[in-house]
Amino acid sequence: MPKGQVAEVPEDGLTTRARRNRPLLIVHTGEMKGKSTAAFGLALRAWNQGWSIGVFQFVKSAKWKVGEETAFRALDRVHTETGEGGPVQWHKMGEGWSWTRKKGTEDDHATAAQEGWREIRRRIEAQEHRLYVLDEFTYPLKWGWVDVEEVVAVLRARPGAQHVVVTGRDAPPALVEAADLVLETTKVRHPMDVGQKGQRGIEW
Amino acid sequence: MPKGQVAEVPEDGLTTRARRNRPLLIVHTGEMKGKSTAAFGLALRAWNQGWSIGVFQFVKSAKWKVGEETAFRALDRVHTETGEGGPVQWHKMGEGWSWTRKKGTEDDHATAAQEGWREIRRRIEAQEHRLYVLDEFTYPLKWGWVDVEEVVAVLRARPGAQHVVVTGRDAPPALVEAADLVLETTKVRHPMDVGQKGQRGIEW
Repeated sequence: MPKGQVAEVPEDGLTTRARRNRPLLIVHTGEMKGKSTAAFGLALRAWNQGWSIGVFQFVKSAKWKVGEETAFRALDRVHTETGEGGPVQWHKMGEGWSWTRKKGTEDDHATAAQEGWREIRRRIEAQEHRLYVLDEFTYPLKWGWVDVEEVVAVLRARPGAQHVVVTGRDAPPALVEAADLVLETTKVRHPMDVGQKGQRGIEW
Repeated sequence: MPKGQVAEVPEDGLTTRARRNRPLLIVHTGEMKGKSTAAFGLALRAWNQGWSIGVFQFVKSAKWKVGEETAFRALDRVHTETGEGGPVQWHKMGEGWSWTRKKGTEDDHATAAQEGWREIRRRIEAQEHRLYVLDEFTYPLKWGWVDVEEVVAVLRARPGAQHVVVTGRDAPPALVEAADLVLETTKVRHPMDVGQKGQRGIEW
């Protein structure tokens, strides 16, 4: 579909302007790692718009996404020092959420995930960010640590112009149903299939 | 597939270390815009590794990818000023390639595309970058402006540890065949289908 052209004009009573500024719920799901990568690429555009960005990483990983984190922390510093772009906050579950400042809670993943969601809910209701990246948030939903119905209700009712991107495999059907945009990344061929090892700069 | 595990160990005579450091040719194709977005997300990791990054945008667009460009120019400045991360060069075809410094060549797209490819080839042979993002490069290939066989031959024979990411729809079969990793982004649902307009910070 050509850029800027729409397949049909919906009978939703919205003006073009209102429709253009409609906050989006985006889900990146599918089998491949491109899910998070594409979400962070989108966050680059949000940064350039001067938006406040909140990244919340669920699911502990040995390597996290240290490349992206370092780059966005550098962009946050650029914002602080020069006013260019927007502020970026980066929080991860498995080392203790940044706002709690307590380490060692990662043993109880379910509780940590719930704490993360509770804080995200508070921020959404207070409209603290313009873009939320809920990275690998599908897993605590899938594992029953966080209630899907509550998440969908909070996201559907979120005030203002807050965009939310959720990444991870096996997005729950209720979340997919609520989303404005669902992107699925499909593997065609991957070097690990023929014995390639993951490598710095590419995989993390 | 779990991270770091390989489905089979190939009989390619390489050590694990050699295999881990094998330079990759990556193709992001498919119907959705996530292609470029994911390539720029990958470039964030490359930046964090201190790699020299060269971005080459083919195909003129009214909005280019100004968000990504601004963010990477900021990251390049961070590198220059603090030594953190790596250098980033960003070149676009439709406003005259940066290294030619001549404007107004965009009327002859085929010539401009050939000039771009010639410079990329020169840099690859001189090993000037560690990561090349050839954004929307599939189009000049598809339109016959740049010779697919030559591109594949140059990419296959590239020296050192240079990674190359090519994005765009309809990647030529010979390029897909040569690639180590092919990612295809599939649309599940897109708001423009129901009349959503593209918007700043999300679409560009």
